[in-house]
Amino acid sequence: MSYTAPVKDMLFAIEHLARIDQVAQIPGFEDAGLDTAAAVLEECAKFNEGVVAPLNVEGDKNPSSFANGQVTTTPGFRQAFRQFAEGGWQGLQHPVDFGGQGLPKTIGAACGEMLNSANLSFALCPLLTDGAIEALLTAGSEQLKATYLEKLISGQWTGTMNLTEPGAGSDLALVRSRAEPQADGSYKIFGTKIFITYGEHDMAENIVHLVLARVAGAPEGVKGISLFVVPKFLVNPDGSLGMRNDAHCVSIEHKLGIKASPTAVLQFGDHGGAVGYLVGEENRGLEYMFIMMNAARYAVGMQGIAVAERAYQHAVQYARERVQSRPVDGSLPGAGPIIHHPDVRRMLMTMRALAEGCRAMATVAAAAYDAAHHHPDAQVAKDNAAFYEFMVPLVKGYSTEMSLEVTSLGVQVHGGMGFIEETGAAQYYRDARILTIYEGTTAIQANDLVGRKTARDGGQLARAIAAQVEQTEGELNASATADARAVARRLAAARQAFLDAVDFIAANAKSDPNAAFAGSVPYLMLAGNLVAGWQMGRALLVAQELSSKGQDVGFMQAKIATARFYAEHILVKAPCQRDAIVEGAASVTALALEAF
Amino acid sequence: MSYTAPVKDMLFAIEHLARIDQVAQIPGFEDAGLDTAAAVLEECAKFNEGVVAPLNVEGDKNPSSFANGQVTTTPGFRQAFRQFAEGGWQGLQHPVDFGGQGLPKTIGAACGEMLNSANLSFALCPLLTDGAIEALLTAGSEQLKATYLEKLISGQWTGTMNLTEPGAGSDLALVRSRAEPQADGSYKIFGTKIFITYGEHDMAENIVHLVLARVAGAPEGVKGISLFVVPKFLVNPDGSLGMRNDAHCVSIEHKLGIKASPTAVLQFGDHGGAVGYLVGEENRGLEYMFIMMNAARYAVGMQGIAVAERAYQHAVQYARERVQSRPVDGSLPGAGPIIHHPDVRRMLMTMRALAEGCRAMATVAAAAYDAAHHHPDAQVAKDNAAFYEFMVPLVKGYSTEMSLEVTSLGVQVHGGMGFIEETGAAQYYRDARILTIYEGTTAIQANDLVGRKTARDGGQLARAIAAQVEQTEGELNASATADARAVARRLAAARQAFLDAVDFIAANAKSDPNAAFAGSVPYLMLAGNLVAGWQMGRALLVAQELSSKGQDVGFMQAKIATARFYAEHILVKAPCQRDAIVEGAASVTALALEAF
Repeated sequence: MSYTAPVKDMLFAIEHLARIDQVAQIPGFEDAGLDTAAAVLEECAKFNEGVVAPLNVEGDKNPSSFANGQVTTTPGFRQAFRQFAEGGWQGLQHPVDFGGQGLPKTIGAACGEMLNSANLSFALCPLLTDGAIEALLTAGSEQLKATYLEKLISGQWTGTMNLTEPGAGSDLALVRSRAEPQADGSYKIFGTKIFITYGEHDMAENIVHLVLARVAGAPEGVKGISLFVVPKFLVNPDGSLGMRNDAHCVSIEHKLGIKASPTAVLQFGDHGGAVGYLVGEENRGLEYMFIMMNAARYAVGMQGIAVAERAYQHAVQYARERVQSRPVDGSLPGAGPIIHHPDVRRMLMTMRALAEGCRAMATVAAAAYDAAHHHPDAQVAKDNAAFYEFMVPLVKGYSTEMSLEVTSLGVQVHGGMGFIEETGAAQYYRDARILTIYEGTTAIQANDLVGRKTARDGGQLARAIAAQVEQTEGELNASATADARAVARRLAAARQAFLDAVDFIAANAKSDPNAAFAGSVPYLMLAGNLVAGWQMGRALLVAQELSSKGQDVGFMQAKIATARFYAEHILVKAPCQRDAIVEGAASVTALALEAF
Repeated sequence: MSYTAPVKDMLFAIEHLARIDQVAQIPGFEDAGLDTAAAVLEECAKFNEGVVAPLNVEGDKNPSSFANGQVTTTPGFRQAFRQFAEGGWQGLQHPVDFGGQGLPKTIGAACGEMLNSANLSFALCPLLTDGAIEALLTAGSEQLKATYLEKLISGQWTGTMNLTEPGAGSDLALVRSRAEPQADGSYKIFGTKIFITYGEHDMAENIVHLVLARVAGAPEGVKGISLFVVPKFLVNPDGSLGMRNDAHCVSIEHKLGIKASPTAVLQFGDHGGAVGYLVGEENRGLEYMFIMMNAARYAVGMQGIAVAERAYQHAVQYARERVQSRPVDGSLPGAGPIIHHPDVRRMLMTMRALAEGCRAMATVAAAAYDAAHHHPDAQVAKDNAAFYEFMVPLVKGYSTEMSLEVTSLGVQVHGGMGFIEETGAAQYYRDARILTIYEGTTAIQANDLVGRKTARDGGQLARAIAAQVEQTEGELNASATADARAVARRLAAARQAFLDAVDFIAANAKSDPNAAFAGSVPYLMLAGNLVAGWQMGRALLVAQELSSKGQDVGFMQAKIATARFYAEHILVKAPCQRDAIVEGAASVTALALEAF
């Protein structure tokens, strides 16, 4: 099944919702206006549609394999990754100083979506490399930067994140890997890491592992964790590759999905100790790791949107072709394509509205990231940083949870054929299932949203966002069309529901944490629903305006119809989500432990 | 992962909700009281826990395979099926006259759940055989009955349903297989059938295919379809096996789940014509097929409940063992089992409440089936038949849709381990995905619910069911405990939501079918939610009563807590489901076809 990048919808979000014109006023982004965005997206679409997407099914049928410490990736991956690197795609958002293209996230995020729609498994390698680059940029010494950054940014080498251990998943306090300081300033690393994405592969010359470990004598818990660079091959002073380091893949996992992406068990130090180099300062590893994590969390949210878009396209194509039964309204003389059946339309609209809503949310969040990191006005930067921080758990949590629903609907649209692997719909269903888990489960995202992002400031930022939603409601009501009013009505109810939940959480997070956290995931889902619905409301206003001017009327009318569907079928759930959070907390933990 | 049949919960539903004492007053069921139920369930649990459940993972790792026209099932399946047959389990609900045990469905349904929890793939063979038996009992000639029924009921032979063709899935009007009358009264059958569950296998001596085909000259559409018995081996007058019939398996499918169950493509008549025997009269095939279908639809609903129960048990065990992070309420000094985390509790409670709620609904429906088919009072039988007919799409549609949610939560509880196939949680997620599709997709169930079960009588029966719910609300309010009142409150809101949806559907089904059918699946989900929640409300009343008498207090308190959770986290969604149906119909079909 071919993939066509939704360039028009991406540019709509970039131009009208994320306001690329404002991003392009930030020093350093002067050339990153709408024209640049359009040019980059077109080129990116061509590459991903032509080179990466055709490898998606092959990766599922012929996954990465392991033998004798080596991982062989799916045929074609190696060559495609070369093209990816040569095209400069790894460096898209990274600094020009190290060979990157220095583009804003507002543009980069859309490219990330395309790569992931084309091939989730393939895209994971650059995704993890981005995280390693971020960590080194933020906390690496000049020497580490000089040694590793250009090679990572050019795609010559790749990066990994080594957090998880058999006993330490969500709870990094339980990390047991250890680091012994050496006389030359390096460390010897010992331990076992599991679930290491692209921890071993044959697509690049070297792999730069970023590894969490404890220096001997460090405090217990998360305050005693340090971050190390542990390259697969040591690097000589002239930049050439030296000795093989004592970091070895001992197996890869047999997974439900994203099978082409090798998930490695890595053994550090079984032969005397792996050479590692401290990133930043000792015992601040978790802080640095969160830099990588935050970038990766946003990117995984994009994966959710990406797989939703791909599943949607696949389902639409099938629904246009498959002939079965006469439409209930008698609009065809006999059996017709199933896209004529109302329930198939409902499923396709749900898939479409969720993908567009989450894309809009994520694109707006990307612009906030750009302003947070680069805006010259400190207050503007700070406000945007706060907004972006609030958005990260929503982009990650909500977009991935909705991708489970979308990919499941994608199977359902196909009927019995959806259950047959050769159809391809099932692959998205399997692939998507990891997205609500890795880089922090939805519950971890929700804890972050409840604790750090909502309760800590007593719900202040959450209420400020709600006030912005209210402003959009006002604009919708002022425009006075039936569509705008219908959306405004659902938006108002959802905003009120959100505010009630915010009040409940702010009031209970400390005094009755079980009650607040019992509703943490429902609160995340409510917040994500509201913000995506809000962006669809903003989109509707723009689409009405442009449509009335005769600009791209078909596209604009579709946006209006999709926004209204979002409001009436997805946003409409918000008051009930509120009731469960605010009035149902006690029943979550009422059952005695022994009664389960 | 071992399986423990929830015998206590099943007997609770059988005794207190389905009222087995009333079933046992029906002539023919005099011996089928609670003691019999308890004895049968204990025996059934032992068999399924010990023999069938251990083959579940093996079936996934080592599925049925095809070579040279033969299907080899998973090692162990053949022997287990022998034990199943010898234990008399195939004949549980079938007439004593043909060697069955003649037990009511009220008991048989629980046994069906156990078999399916133990092994969905294995259970499909008896499930389809049950359908073939039903069709022959209802419409088969004395000779067909004499030839086939005892062998099917004893499990010596198995049965299949042959409906689907490459161009005819949900739309049976498109069936192209044809039947040519022969001089001896038999027919020659020609055509291709796909998706035939256990269409070929090595577990029994003969396979009795029930095949839809058109007799030459029959009317177009569904009114020209006839039903035929086409045995794999012809049967000699003395009952011994004769010649191999011209019905051959040409391949089996590569599926997302239920891999041990062979899904065959069958070719009829490639070597001169397959010998077939007409069931009942010509051109009434669809009617007979619906008899099989209705039995199978209920049974597939049970599969949803069964896989939900198994996934729940798996997740609970993991959540008790996996240690990660300190509970937010500080109730443990350090990291503890994840079952202490509120969001894990929320997920487990959701899984549990959905499984229990759907089990209660299905058990009550089974008792209605028994009364419908066997009650001596014609009016009582008729009322129960109407109620049962209303329940079939709910048991099938709602229980299977919820099984997708439950098995997905099961993966989520396991975190990263859930994505690793060896853990086993992913198998339930993959296996369950067919349940909302086969034997009629959820949309097909919903069309049935909207068209035949709701609109046809103007919503009369639906409102009568709502009146029964209202009575339960009254009893809950009268009992006046906080739990009962909380449930009554959500039940009242859900009932009102349901009534609004019924009014909307009754008003629009003919005049604006697109509007009515745009909400068909949401209406099914709302109705299922209400009925399951209602049964949980009834369960709460019984549990309060028995608990106050000191009877099995732990179990009764757990039932109360689960009922309240159901009300506050699942039933609570009903008003929003209503809004989407009643106020969101137009936006489902607003997007122009070419804009998808």
